Amino acid sequence: MFRLTSRLISVSSCLLFFLLTTAAMATTDPLPSWNDGVSKSAITSFVQAVTDKSSSDYVQPSERIAVFDNDGTLWSEQPAYFQLYFAMDRVKEMAADHPEWKNQQPFQAVLEGDMKALAASGEKGLVELVMTTHAGMTDDEFTAIVKKWLQTAQHPTLHKPYTELVYKPMLELLDYLRANNFKTFIVSGGGIEFMRPWTEEVYGIPPEQVVGSSIVTKFEMRDGKPVLVREPELNFIDDKAGKPVGINQYIGRRPIFAFGNSDGDLQMLQYTTLGSEKKRFAGIVHHTDGEREFAYDRDSHMGRLDKGLIEAKKNGWTVVDMKKEWKVIYP
Amino acid sequence: MFRLTSRLISVSSCLLFFLLTTAAMATTDPLPSWNDGVSKSAITSFVQAVTDKSSSDYVQPSERIAVFDNDGTLWSEQPAYFQLYFAMDRVKEMAADHPEWKNQQPFQAVLEGDMKALAASGEKGLVELVMTTHAGMTDDEFTAIVKKWLQTAQHPTLHKPYTELVYKPMLELLDYLRANNFKTFIVSGGGIEFMRPWTEEVYGIPPEQVVGSSIVTKFEMRDGKPVLVREPELNFIDDKAGKPVGINQYIGRRPIFAFGNSDGDLQMLQYTTLGSEKKRFAGIVHHTDGEREFAYDRDSHMGRLDKGLIEAKKNGWTVVDMKKEWKVIYP
Repeated sequence: MFRLTSRLISVSSCLLFFLLTTAAMATTDPLPSWNDGVSKSAITSFVQAVTDKSSSDYVQPSERIAVFDNDGTLWSEQPAYFQLYFAMDRVKEMAADHPEWKNQQPFQAVLEGDMKALAASGEKGLVELVMTTHAGMTDDEFTAIVKKWLQTAQHPTLHKPYTELVYKPMLELLDYLRANNFKTFIVSGGGIEFMRPWTEEVYGIPPEQVVGSSIVTKFEMRDGKPVLVREPELNFIDDKAGKPVGINQYIGRRPIFAFGNSDGDLQMLQYTTLGSEKKRFAGIVHHTDGEREFAYDRDSHMGRLDKGLIEAKKNGWTVVDMKKEWKVIYP
Repeated sequence: MFRLTSRLISVSSCLLFFLLTTAAMATTDPLPSWNDGVSKSAITSFVQAVTDKSSSDYVQPSERIAVFDNDGTLWSEQPAYFQLYFAMDRVKEMAADHPEWKNQQPFQAVLEGDMKALAASGEKGLVELVMTTHAGMTDDEFTAIVKKWLQTAQHPTLHKPYTELVYKPMLELLDYLRANNFKTFIVSGGGIEFMRPWTEEVYGIPPEQVVGSSIVTKFEMRDGKPVLVREPELNFIDDKAGKPVGINQYIGRRPIFAFGNSDGDLQMLQYTTLGSEKKRFAGIVHHTDGEREFAYDRDSHMGRLDKGLIEAKKNGWTVVDMKKEWKVIYP
């Protein structure tokens, strides 16, 4: 009886799906937040070509791998990477147990909100900040810390939760690709375990489709329970030439579609598009909208875009002018 | 018109699916190659519990992660790991360009078919063998080499292509889990790029769901084409305590179902089952069938199973007696 009922529900669902999609297909624009223009038509004509069985550019569904950078491509990255704010908030929370930090860089800079002094601590200071705040606990504990932080933390100038500072046009693009049987991945220089706790809910991208930078973890039995402990040692930097390496390591297929926004994405875009005789897609989010978001490219410390613009021109990549091409920025 | 036709086909497919599955569910045993017994009922009752929404052990589909060791769990591993035969065949093929190998271990041992001398070269010799045969080319070239080898290579004693030496009962298990919305992964000590070219066709497991050991790869532009070059340097050993690390790194979720066959899988089985208050499954393929396959456990060099048997008893893991519980071994 149960089986029969569940079968009937299946059939009803099928019919409902049929009616809904038929109705929807007649009217719906899959990218409503994108103005009609060069980028939108480049995206839709690419998707049409690789999904059309009669096209010489047809790609079978299992090979429809789409990769997206995160910072500056799916969510904002100014005035600093959101993961840096996470690390700074962690320092403030941990400070009670570390009275010595009052006179010790880079912690002093964080506690005093002195971004200039923090920048002066250089890469060494940043790595120390990350290791202190991202290691020394199990990965389950770290996940809980990230989730809790996201519930209350707010962007310093936009005063919104960070997960609301994602780009609506890109969310639509992710949905559109998945509706066309693409498998969507994040390939980010950000920390893999910093992203995984929320990417499924926010982007519809499950943990196993997130590639990122990582620190070393170690397996241990603690009180008879198996745990992974996060160690203060770099494991993998998923940036620049590391991105194709990360893609190969985690995904094991060459993407046919890639989106980035900075020179850190250059090699990923090259790896995706160059050397193939078939149609491939590379897109760059160009931050041109100082009013609704932030305007920056060649001279920015975070998300610098310089070579990428040159290569885009040379290779026919799609450069999205946020100001002109996006109707809205955030959901 | 095209859209309407494709919609109609969708509906027809739905109805067809309904009729076929309804007919099938009444009669079909999802694990026909398994004799009714302890292991089969442990598997099916676990799957029923975690897929039953009214059960306290219910697990939502996205968390239904199942991990499988490969050598000795999904295909045979005797008299030596198949990847070792691959390396040896490569040496023979490359020997014409390396006259010095005639007097140089471990190559001499391979060329003379002297397994004893090869074993005597120890881990150092094996690593040298692997690096010589697995590095020094692009990953696309390596994939082509593996595919070509599989087309002609034969097992030294069973005289069959290696990809036919997979376990039919395990293929059924993979299908059964996937039919119940599990996502199936390989987590093997074997080389990740040695497995990925064929796991989709043979096991239905796509490259992005294969976790394995790896060597370092490096991104390069060669004649304007982006390639990944395989370097003779270890990157990650996905064995023993490395397996939970690999699972976390690649999948980012703790599995609820794991299958192995040797002490190399112990930590993966612990990581999957211990410390959870909910129902979890760990299985061990016990090689008890010297007639139809190979019989080995505590004293074997390849796939030694010793601690695993003790831990299985202690933790209530399922130990599959191949001889008694499997109707057939190979497809």
